[in-house]
Amino acid sequence: MENRPYNLSVWRVNMHDKNIRQESVPESWIRLGGRGLIARILLDEVPPECEPLGEYNKLIFSPGLLVGHMLSSCDRISIGGKSPLTGGVKESNAGGTTGMQITMLGIKALIIEGMPVDNDFSILYLDKDGGRFDKAEEFRGLGVYEATQRIREKYGEKSAIALIGPAGEMKLKAAGIQNLDKDGTPARIAARGGLGAVMGSKGLKAIVINGFSGEKAPIANPEAFKLAQKAYTKSLLEHPQTALYRDYGTAAMVEMCQAFGSLPTRNFSAGIFEKAEDISGEKMRELLHARGGASNPTHACMPGCTIRCSNIFGGEDGKMIVSPLEYETIGLMGSNLGIGDLETIARMCYKVNDLGLDSIDVGAALGVAAEAGLLQWGDGVRAMEMIDEIYSGTPLGRMIGCGASLTGMILGIERVPVVKGQAMASYEPRAIKGTGVTYATSPQGADHTCGLTIRAKVDHLDPKGQAEISRSGQINMAGYDTLGACIFAGFGFAASPESIRDLLNARYNWNIDTTILQSLGRETLTMEREFNRRAGFTKIDDRLPEWMRLEPVPPHNAVFDVPDEDLDMLFNW
Amino acid sequence: MENRPYNLSVWRVNMHDKNIRQESVPESWIRLGGRGLIARILLDEVPPECEPLGEYNKLIFSPGLLVGHMLSSCDRISIGGKSPLTGGVKESNAGGTTGMQITMLGIKALIIEGMPVDNDFSILYLDKDGGRFDKAEEFRGLGVYEATQRIREKYGEKSAIALIGPAGEMKLKAAGIQNLDKDGTPARIAARGGLGAVMGSKGLKAIVINGFSGEKAPIANPEAFKLAQKAYTKSLLEHPQTALYRDYGTAAMVEMCQAFGSLPTRNFSAGIFEKAEDISGEKMRELLHARGGASNPTHACMPGCTIRCSNIFGGEDGKMIVSPLEYETIGLMGSNLGIGDLETIARMCYKVNDLGLDSIDVGAALGVAAEAGLLQWGDGVRAMEMIDEIYSGTPLGRMIGCGASLTGMILGIERVPVVKGQAMASYEPRAIKGTGVTYATSPQGADHTCGLTIRAKVDHLDPKGQAEISRSGQINMAGYDTLGACIFAGFGFAASPESIRDLLNARYNWNIDTTILQSLGRETLTMEREFNRRAGFTKIDDRLPEWMRLEPVPPHNAVFDVPDEDLDMLFNW
Repeated sequence: MENRPYNLSVWRVNMHDKNIRQESVPESWIRLGGRGLIARILLDEVPPECEPLGEYNKLIFSPGLLVGHMLSSCDRISIGGKSPLTGGVKESNAGGTTGMQITMLGIKALIIEGMPVDNDFSILYLDKDGGRFDKAEEFRGLGVYEATQRIREKYGEKSAIALIGPAGEMKLKAAGIQNLDKDGTPARIAARGGLGAVMGSKGLKAIVINGFSGEKAPIANPEAFKLAQKAYTKSLLEHPQTALYRDYGTAAMVEMCQAFGSLPTRNFSAGIFEKAEDISGEKMRELLHARGGASNPTHACMPGCTIRCSNIFGGEDGKMIVSPLEYETIGLMGSNLGIGDLETIARMCYKVNDLGLDSIDVGAALGVAAEAGLLQWGDGVRAMEMIDEIYSGTPLGRMIGCGASLTGMILGIERVPVVKGQAMASYEPRAIKGTGVTYATSPQGADHTCGLTIRAKVDHLDPKGQAEISRSGQINMAGYDTLGACIFAGFGFAASPESIRDLLNARYNWNIDTTILQSLGRETLTMEREFNRRAGFTKIDDRLPEWMRLEPVPPHNAVFDVPDEDLDMLFNW
Repeated sequence: MENRPYNLSVWRVNMHDKNIRQESVPESWIRLGGRGLIARILLDEVPPECEPLGEYNKLIFSPGLLVGHMLSSCDRISIGGKSPLTGGVKESNAGGTTGMQITMLGIKALIIEGMPVDNDFSILYLDKDGGRFDKAEEFRGLGVYEATQRIREKYGEKSAIALIGPAGEMKLKAAGIQNLDKDGTPARIAARGGLGAVMGSKGLKAIVINGFSGEKAPIANPEAFKLAQKAYTKSLLEHPQTALYRDYGTAAMVEMCQAFGSLPTRNFSAGIFEKAEDISGEKMRELLHARGGASNPTHACMPGCTIRCSNIFGGEDGKMIVSPLEYETIGLMGSNLGIGDLETIARMCYKVNDLGLDSIDVGAALGVAAEAGLLQWGDGVRAMEMIDEIYSGTPLGRMIGCGASLTGMILGIERVPVVKGQAMASYEPRAIKGTGVTYATSPQGADHTCGLTIRAKVDHLDPKGQAEISRSGQINMAGYDTLGACIFAGFGFAASPESIRDLLNARYNWNIDTTILQSLGRETLTMEREFNRRAGFTKIDDRLPEWMRLEPVPPHNAVFDVPDEDLDMLFNW
């Protein structure tokens, strides 16, 4: 592998011929990784007008540029393709061990293409010598948890696994791709945009990545790397938010959103929830401490992470119910459904994980279904039954598993919180208007991880200036997603931007400056916008739903009133 | 009314304030009617990006320019708005008595706007003095047949009625608007594109039009009009196709399509059907003659029509099963589902009519559902059960009632015969490629009435030149739809184009020439394209589904291979 640039190569997997080829990295791909590289590959290789579940779409795995070194919060895997949910560009990233191990095999991008013959169903096994396909009939239809267990029994416990659940096999549009965390639990889902359905369409149940057959990614200048790592870790640990997430996980956001009136409640009809306290991070921490056993309020999803924002939600019997329980799930499956009980939400989350679904889009779909009268607000039992119908593939189940947009269309409901067909996360955009701008304009569809603005020190209800805040957030996040850095790594990098420069230069023997994060971010967004443009997107797609401009949301009784002109100028930089 | 141009005015109905205003016709609307005027009004008044079932959409009724004089096949009503099915411009027209009676009230366009308060549900009654709103709670949820009967009992039997069934009330995306034929049967549905859902969103069960309180539309030069009418009728009756439709109705197309290999069979997986003979026009004629009673193979939907292509399908007991049974329904609910029995198809059609749904999109949806295994090919009993679920509003029922596109998305099926979300009619576009061009490029979505090319004397399998044939058909049809002329009126007008000129000049005291049909057609298409462009459509929307380019259809094993360049140049005239 020595003469390959940076010891990395492109692995190309054809599902039709069942062959795996290793190719050198094209010049224009070298300085990209993760989300940015996925956008590049989509532009270079995937016809933008193609059917997302058809022959011409590709499923791409690419670790970010900083992946492979146990930098805190920087070993994420990006997965992408044309989205069956939005019809546009899609990158969804996850923590866990996939990013690290794929890098240990020297893979810069794993490109899965073509369609299987005769509904053939496989597991793709990869190690340093290449890979092979194994028949996966025995795993067909299995939930993620059982499938993980049986795949680990067969392939060993050290490998990373990326796999789909029944939802991906059923080609549901809210299906994601699960990844194992450092404890071997399928807990880190690349949830958004239906990439699990793309994997299902390729006839792939799982990819087993035996990274330890390979070696740690080389570093051009180890000393400089170590110094930069130290600077980054220091500024990360010194950031006050870091401690907050260590203590309460992402669930810390419940009280914060409640305070801002931005906690989506009863299908986004309100921004505060009378039982917010019962589903808060404080409540969860207290509960998990008291329960002990498997419960763990402070858990790392990747080796080396110092933030440890994840958690294990255990039952009274000491056994794990689900890991993790994130704020997004709590919001969409809790307050958004009028459910004020963490244990119910945790049990719902377990099933949605097991199906291999995006809990945001499923939670939003259940909210829309409640609006249509299919369940009562707060009725966790009925919500659980509806999730069970996804397993059985009834029209109701499939509808919910396709997410909020299609559920709204079928049920004739207009109050559907989606942009580009993808559900909004647990941040009410009429109360946090900068995030509304991100939802509206992100090439990914509504997605808080593309530029959450809630921490900006501004009046979030004032429409003025929100586009600038969103723009800056979107550029940074596209940059971080290209580095493989978690959203929380930004706490560290923001305080020491030179550490990004130094890490990249030391790793790759480059000579870049501190503008790299923004230049990667801009380049990535530009490519994504171009893919969407070619796929038929126009400015009309960069809008929040009409009802959010008309219907005031309590407690601030705010509507979304950022002018269209601001949205349309967002990417004119 | 004397000083209003041409004695016509615009009637504007606000569902929020419940008021009805009569306005003079704006200058730029005067020389338009029907489909062309709807496009103009949409461009002038409806924000193209608006939510189709929301506050800003409008429902427009407009008779064509030649309506009101019992010219054979020329009294059609055009209904339009932004389509909830396609998201674009929509005009759907129907025969029956609505066009004539609305013209007798001097209405050039009836524009229904705003949203009702508190889920208020009304009947709009119109007569020469204006109109009023009556509470319609007693009619809520009623099928079209029973609602018609009860509305006629209440308002008298002479008025025209445009009404929705349960599907429109449920805001299903394949809901149409039913109109009465000359015998008072709700048999003439403006079926396509979900306009029934728009009417449902406006809280309107029915519009009762007491045309006979008004007067026949005036004619500027009656003598000249009579002469032109005579010329037109003569050339219409002399056309050989006219006799064919009189004898066999539109069902004559079954054998013709079978011969071309373009009869959609088993969800468009084949173009010939082994039981085609059993569902043919010949078979139907034979059956209806033998049965007698209510059966009538040669029936006119509008007073004065000399073609009489419609029929009444009676049972063995002499009672009506449904009226009419059209080729489109026979194809989509017959061969497309593997059902080779006319009586079964007639009974399915009755229910779909009663629900107020488009039998094309529902038939296509059932075909997709069969592909997904929800019913067996040829199983009419199960198909009927599934239609019954639409009444009960189950997720399955609602899905089918939303048409083929959403059904395919929910069920994860790719072989879905739609363009712009609207189902193709019973003409396989890989075998009749010019019609494929029409499906792909029409601003209305897949719609055979926008430019059917099957009668062109060309090799329908040769991709060359199909765009030109489709273009000419689309221009003509947009012209006819603006005149209020039935697709079959073209048999007469094509042979005597000067009669269009003479009729219009005599009617309105204009001074136009024989290019009027094409200039109306081009103007209409240009406005429709512009509305769609503003609504976010791009050339990517002007494509057949990908699988139709990849999957050969028997018996000719043809794929759709008209080049994209031809599609993109269609409207460059």
